Amino acid sequence: MSIRTIEWKNNYIRMIDQTKLPQKLVYLNIKDIESLWQAIKLLKVRGAPALGGAAGLGAYLGIRNSRAVNYLQFEKELGRVCDYLASSRPTAINLFWGLERMMRVSQANKNKSILEIKKMLFKEAQMIIEEDRASCRQIGNFGEKLFCDNDSVLTICNTGILATIDYGTALGVIYRAQEVGKRLKIYACETRPLLQGARLTTWELKRKNMDVTLICDSMAASLMQQGKIKKVIAGADRIAANGDTANKIGTSSLAILAKYHKIPFYIAAPVSTFDLNIKSGKEIPIEQRNPAEITELFFKNRVAPRGIKVFNPAFDVTPNALISAIITDKGVIRPPYLKNICSYLK
Amino acid sequence: MSIRTIEWKNNYIRMIDQTKLPQKLVYLNIKDIESLWQAIKLLKVRGAPALGGAAGLGAYLGIRNSRAVNYLQFEKELGRVCDYLASSRPTAINLFWGLERMMRVSQANKNKSILEIKKMLFKEAQMIIEEDRASCRQIGNFGEKLFCDNDSVLTICNTGILATIDYGTALGVIYRAQEVGKRLKIYACETRPLLQGARLTTWELKRKNMDVTLICDSMAASLMQQGKIKKVIAGADRIAANGDTANKIGTSSLAILAKYHKIPFYIAAPVSTFDLNIKSGKEIPIEQRNPAEITELFFKNRVAPRGIKVFNPAFDVTPNALISAIITDKGVIRPPYLKNICSYLK
Repeated sequence: MSIRTIEWKNNYIRMIDQTKLPQKLVYLNIKDIESLWQAIKLLKVRGAPALGGAAGLGAYLGIRNSRAVNYLQFEKELGRVCDYLASSRPTAINLFWGLERMMRVSQANKNKSILEIKKMLFKEAQMIIEEDRASCRQIGNFGEKLFCDNDSVLTICNTGILATIDYGTALGVIYRAQEVGKRLKIYACETRPLLQGARLTTWELKRKNMDVTLICDSMAASLMQQGKIKKVIAGADRIAANGDTANKIGTSSLAILAKYHKIPFYIAAPVSTFDLNIKSGKEIPIEQRNPAEITELFFKNRVAPRGIKVFNPAFDVTPNALISAIITDKGVIRPPYLKNICSYLK
Repeated sequence: MSIRTIEWKNNYIRMIDQTKLPQKLVYLNIKDIESLWQAIKLLKVRGAPALGGAAGLGAYLGIRNSRAVNYLQFEKELGRVCDYLASSRPTAINLFWGLERMMRVSQANKNKSILEIKKMLFKEAQMIIEEDRASCRQIGNFGEKLFCDNDSVLTICNTGILATIDYGTALGVIYRAQEVGKRLKIYACETRPLLQGARLTTWELKRKNMDVTLICDSMAASLMQQGKIKKVIAGADRIAANGDTANKIGTSSLAILAKYHKIPFYIAAPVSTFDLNIKSGKEIPIEQRNPAEITELFFKNRVAPRGIKVFNPAFDVTPNALISAIITDKGVIRPPYLKNICSYLK
C-alpha cells in the first residue's frame, strides 16, 4: 500500500499527521491556511521537500476562494497568504522557494483573468509535487552508486517518503540502492527531541522490509568506533552557496564523528534546497523551538525540573569541509563546493 | 537541606529512588539484597562511586543475619552475597572494588568471631562511604584549578551528589569552583535514554542555585561551533591502565567533538574507578540494556514501531588520546597516561 505524505484531494489538502506515527496512520483534511500553518509549526507535516509541496498547495488553498476583482487586489491577497505561511518555520528554504514560485506564476499571468490565474496556480502546485517526486528518483539514481552491497549506513531524522512527496532524499538513495540489489544495514538515530528517526524512519524502513536498527543520537560514536558504520547520509533544510548545510540538529555532530573515524559523510537534497543568495552557513536562520519539547516528553511526562533553562535549536550547520559529497537531482556535487555548486545549478 | 544518596539508617539501607526524580524526592528502605540488586539494575541508585557505597552496605546487609557457625561457612555466604550483587551491572568497577574490599576485610579477620567479623564489615562499609565523601572533596580541590571565572562547561549524565555519597566527581569539581568564587555556566546533556542529565543533574544544580541550561545530547556540537563551550567534564565508570575511560554512552562523542573544536576534555573520578588489571578500553565489558528504554519513553509511551531492532549500550569508551587530563582524589593526571597513572596510583 503506497502512502501520500501530502496531496490535493476532494477540494482540500490531505496530509498524514506525522505526530501520530508510528502508533496510527491518520490523515488530516486541511481546509484553511490557519490549519496548515499550525500543521507546519507542529510538524504534522515536515521535511524540507514536503514543505515545498505544502507551500504550493497552501498558496492555492489560501486564494482559491478569493473574490478579488482585479489583479492588484488578487496579488495583494496572495502575498498576504504567502507571507503568513512563510512565518510558520524559518529554516527550510523549500517553503519559501515554493511560495515564491507561486507568486511568480501569478505575476507572469497578470493579464489573464483571476479565474485563469487560479487555475495556473493550482497547476503550479501540482507541478511542484510532480517535480519533487521525479527529483527524489533522480537523487536516488545518482546516490545509490556511492553505496556498496552490505554497507552499513547511519542516518538521522526522517528523509524518506514522509519528508518528501514520495520516496525521499537520503532515504531515497537507500531505497534505490536496495532496489538495484544492494543489501544495506541501516542505523537510524532517534533524533531528539521530536524523535523523527525513532517514530518515522524506522516505521518507513520497516514497511519496506529493510534491515533497520534504532539508536540514540549519542550512540553513533560508539558504533563508528566499533567499525560498524561504513557511510553516513543525511538530508538538508538549506544549503548555502559554499556547501555549508543546515539540517536537523545533530547532523553536524555526525559529520564531525564521521571525519574523525574516516567515514564518508553525504548530504542528499534536491536543488530547491540550495540558497545561492547566502554565502555561508552563518547566514542561515536557525529556528529555536519550544523548551517543552525537551523538558516534557511529548508534552505528557515532565523529565526536567520546572523553570529550567533550555537550548532547543531545531537545526545545526555542517561546515562544507566535513561533507564528502552532496547528492542532488542534477548529479553528485563534490568539493570544491563554491565552484561546483555554481556550475551544477546553472 | 542536605540529601543522602545512600546510607545505613534504622538497620536498613536507605537510598533516594533516583527514578522518581525530579518529580519527587522519595527514599527507599532496602531490607534485603534482592531489593538492592533490583535497585541497582533499575538505576534507582547509580553512579560509579555510589555503587561502591552500595556494594559495602549491600555485602553487610547480606550477611548481618548470617547463622554461620564457623569462618569457612561465613566466607562462603559472604562470597555468594558478593557474587550475586556483582551480577547486577557489569561496567562500573567501583561495585566490584567495594565487594572485594569487603571480602578482604573478612579474610583478614578470619581468626575473629563471626560477630566480630560482622562488626568489622559494618565498619568497612561505613569507611567506604566516608572515604568517598573525602575523595570527592579532594577531586573538587584538585579539579577546580582547571576552571576559570565565567567558564561555560558542558557535562553529561549525572556525576554529582546523586552519583556519589556526597558532592560528586565531575559536578564536585564544578561545585568546588563555585565555592571558591568562580561563576560557571553549565550546559547539561540530557543523556538519553534514561535522561540522568535532564532529571538529576539539572535538579541538583538548580538546588544549588547554579546557572544550568539543558540540551539534547545532539546539540553539543552546535554549542561548540558557536564558541559557547570552554571546557567539557565527565565522570567515569571504569578507567583502564592506559587512561581509556568507560563512561555513560555519549561521552566519547563529546570527547571527539571537543577535540575537533580544540576544547579541553576532562574526566573526574576517584582512584577506585581505575582498573589496572586491564590494559586498554577494549577489555572493558559494556552493559547492553533493555531496548524498551529507547522504544518506550519511561515504559509509558511507545515511540518506535513494535519489534524494531535496537542497539542500547549503557556506556562507551573514550580513547585516552582525547582526554586532556584525569582529575582524581590523588591529583590531576596528564598524558602520557600509561606512565603517569601508574605513578599516581602507587
